[in-house]
Amino acid sequence: MTGPETARPSAAVREDRLWQRHLDMARLGATPKGGVNRQALSPEDAAARRLLASWAEARGFAVATDAIGNLFIRYEGSDRAAAPVLTGSHMDSQPTGGRFDGIYGVLAGFEVLEAFADCGWRPRHPVELVAWTNEEGSRFQPGAMGSAVYAGALPLATALAVTDRAGVSVAEALAQTLSSAPAPSRPGLGGPVAAYIEAHIEQGPRLEAARRTIGAVTGIQGQRRYTVDIVGEEAHAGTTPRAARKDALSAAVAIVAALEQLMADRSDTVRFTVGRFEVHPGSPNTVPGRVHFTIDFRHPDAAVLAARGDRIAELAERHAKGCAVTVTEISRVPPTIFAPAVIDLVRRCAGRLGYPLMDMPSGAGHDAMHIARMAPSGMIFVPCLRGVSHNEAESATPADLAAGARVLADALADLARS
Amino acid sequence: MTGPETARPSAAVREDRLWQRHLDMARLGATPKGGVNRQALSPEDAAARRLLASWAEARGFAVATDAIGNLFIRYEGSDRAAAPVLTGSHMDSQPTGGRFDGIYGVLAGFEVLEAFADCGWRPRHPVELVAWTNEEGSRFQPGAMGSAVYAGALPLATALAVTDRAGVSVAEALAQTLSSAPAPSRPGLGGPVAAYIEAHIEQGPRLEAARRTIGAVTGIQGQRRYTVDIVGEEAHAGTTPRAARKDALSAAVAIVAALEQLMADRSDTVRFTVGRFEVHPGSPNTVPGRVHFTIDFRHPDAAVLAARGDRIAELAERHAKGCAVTVTEISRVPPTIFAPAVIDLVRRCAGRLGYPLMDMPSGAGHDAMHIARMAPSGMIFVPCLRGVSHNEAESATPADLAAGARVLADALADLARS
Repeated sequence: MTGPETARPSAAVREDRLWQRHLDMARLGATPKGGVNRQALSPEDAAARRLLASWAEARGFAVATDAIGNLFIRYEGSDRAAAPVLTGSHMDSQPTGGRFDGIYGVLAGFEVLEAFADCGWRPRHPVELVAWTNEEGSRFQPGAMGSAVYAGALPLATALAVTDRAGVSVAEALAQTLSSAPAPSRPGLGGPVAAYIEAHIEQGPRLEAARRTIGAVTGIQGQRRYTVDIVGEEAHAGTTPRAARKDALSAAVAIVAALEQLMADRSDTVRFTVGRFEVHPGSPNTVPGRVHFTIDFRHPDAAVLAARGDRIAELAERHAKGCAVTVTEISRVPPTIFAPAVIDLVRRCAGRLGYPLMDMPSGAGHDAMHIARMAPSGMIFVPCLRGVSHNEAESATPADLAAGARVLADALADLARS
Repeated sequence: MTGPETARPSAAVREDRLWQRHLDMARLGATPKGGVNRQALSPEDAAARRLLASWAEARGFAVATDAIGNLFIRYEGSDRAAAPVLTGSHMDSQPTGGRFDGIYGVLAGFEVLEAFADCGWRPRHPVELVAWTNEEGSRFQPGAMGSAVYAGALPLATALAVTDRAGVSVAEALAQTLSSAPAPSRPGLGGPVAAYIEAHIEQGPRLEAARRTIGAVTGIQGQRRYTVDIVGEEAHAGTTPRAARKDALSAAVAIVAALEQLMADRSDTVRFTVGRFEVHPGSPNTVPGRVHFTIDFRHPDAAVLAARGDRIAELAERHAKGCAVTVTEISRVPPTIFAPAVIDLVRRCAGRLGYPLMDMPSGAGHDAMHIARMAPSGMIFVPCLRGVSHNEAESATPADLAAGARVLADALADLARS
C-alpha cells in the first residue's frame, strides 16, 4: 500500500471512460436492434479480445491466455509471488444479447486497473482481470466453460471436444480465435487465487424496484442442464394414421407439458426453461423423425434441484409415444454461497461511497460460481432497466455502471492490500 | 390410331429401362442413407430437369416450360390442335425423401412416351408428360404449387413471391433453375386439357397388405395448411420468474397439445401434423421469444375440414400465455373426387393386363387434385414397402413400377385415341 488510506482508488474511476469503452465494445457484433451477437469464439469474440488486449498493452498491463482461452490482464503487485486477486466476467453474448451482460464485469475490472495505475496505487498482491471463455453457453454447451475448466470443474479435454451445431469443436474455434487475437500463452490452469469479485448487471428487476444502486450478492442458485433427444420415424403426413406414427414432435410436446407440471411452483422460485428446440426434418408435410431440446433448471435449494431434476428422465420416458428418448445431464452446479467476508467487504465499500445497497441472491449463473470453489468470492450487482437481459433491449446507466466499478475498485484494493 | 387394337402400347413398356431411369435419377441429390434430397428449384432439381430433357431430346420429343417452371414433354398426336392428354407428377423431393415419390409418375409417363414411339403408335390427341414444379412444398409453401398455378387455383404472382427460409423467392430460384436447365418457354398457363392420369407410389400400406398391384384411385382427401407465429419476449432463463415470462415455446407447446385434442378421432381418419417447428433465438439459457410452426390437416370429408379447421385460430389464441399469436391459412384444397370414367378406365386396363387391383382413396395430396378441376382425371397407385414414404427408406419393386406404367400406357392410349 503506497497511497494514503484516505485516497481510495475508487476516486480515480472515470464514468466517462468506462461508458465509452462500453460503446466501443458494443460495436463488435452490433445488431440492428441495438444489441450484440458476439457468441463465444466467433470472429466478433476475437475482435473483442483484440480490442481489450490493445487497451491493456497501451497501459503496459501484461496479457496472457490459458489453455481454454481465458484472457488475463495483470496489474502487478509489490509481491510478484503472491496469489493474485481476480476480477472479471465474460465478453461473449447471447445470439440476441445486450450491451452489458458480461462485458460490464470485464470493463469495470479494466477501469479498476486503470484507476489503480492513474493514482499510482500499488498493492501487495497482483490483481488480474479475467475475461472467461464462453460464459453464455449458447454456441458451445455448457456455459461458464472457461471458469469451469479453470476451477477444475470440467476437464479441459471434455471442453475442447464440445462441438457447435455446425460440428465445429471448441478446440478448432479456439485455435482460430487465438490465431486472429494472439496473446502469450500461460502454462497450466487454475493455481492459487487470493480472492475473486465479479461485477455484473443484475439481470433482474429487484434493484430497480427497490431503488438501490448496489447489490451485495450472497450466492447463486444451483442449476442442472440437460439435453433431450427423441427419435421417432419420418412418415408422410397425409397417409400415415396416428396409430402408425412415431411422431417425435408430438412426443416432445407431451414431454415438455409433463415437465412443466413437474416444475409447477406456487412460490415461482423454480426456473425451468426449454430454450433450444430443434425439429427434423422440418418439412410441413412430413411427420418429424427427430427432436432435440435443452432443459435449464435452477433453484437455490439443493434438495429441490435433486428431487425434481432426478425425475426428468423418467417423465420423458413415460411420454415418449413410441419414440426412443435419451435424456443427458450435461452440467450440474450446486447452489453457491459466497464468502461472508467478501459479501461484507462489498457492503462496507458501497456504504463508504454512500450508495444505497441491498443483499440479494443471483438468479443467473456466473463464472463466480466456479471460482467460489477455489477462493473466497463475491459479486457486485448494478441495476438494469426493467430487469430485461438476454435481450437486445438490455440497458443500464453510465452512473450505475460507474458506481459498481467504484465499489469494485475499493473492494479489490482491500483484498490485494496485504 | 395406327396400330391394331390388339397390340396395346403396354406391350412395349420395358421394366429394365424404367428401373434404370429410377437409378439414374436417384443419383441426383442422393443421401448417404439411400434416399434423395432434391428440393424444389434447387441445383439437384435443375440437374433432374436437365437429365429428363436430355432423354426427351434423344427421342425427339419437344420440351418446354411454362411461367411457373412446369416442364412439358410432348408426344405429338395426329391432330396437333386437339387438347392434349396429360400425365406426370413431380421431380422434387422432401429434404429426407425417397427414390420413388413423384419421380415415379414422371418416369412412368416418360416410359409410356417411349413405348408409344417404340411401337410406332400415333394417337389423335397429343400426349404430354408434365413434371410439375414444387409438389412437396418443403422449401416453398404451399406444395403442389406448379399444378395449382397451372389450374388457376393459385395466382402466378403470389407463387413467385413466396420465399424460402433463407429469403430466396420462387421467382429468383426459378430463374436460377431455368438458367442452369434451359428449355423453350411456352406462353400462357393452363389451357384445354383432354384428361389427366398420374401414376404414384401409394405412400401407404394398403396395397401391400391386400396383395394388390394396382390401386384405382377414387379421390384425394382435402387439406388445409396453416402457419402459426407466436411472439413472446426473450428473457434470462435464470432470473425471470414464470409470472413475468412471455415464453413463446411454452405457449406453442400448449397450443399444439390443445390442437391434438381438437383433432382427436377414434376412427383415426383425421391427419394432423406439425411438421416444421422453429424456435428463436434457440439458446439454452434464454426464454424463447418467437416460435413459428406449420399445421397440415387433412380429411376426406369437407364438413370435418371446415368444422375443426375453423377452430384452430380460436384455440391458439386461448393458449397464447400472454404472447401474440397469428394463425394464417396458407392453402385450402377441398376433397377431390376423380372422374368415374377415368377410374373405370384404370380398372379395365389393369384387369385386361391381369393385375390384382383395388379401388382406394389417396391419403396424400397430389398434383392431380388441381388438374381434376380442369379435366377428367384419375390416378394409378403401385405398392411401396411397408407404406413408408417421405423417408429415405422408401422402396418399391421394378415389377410393380412396370405394372403401373403398363396400365398407364393403355389408359393414356385409350384417352388419346379419339
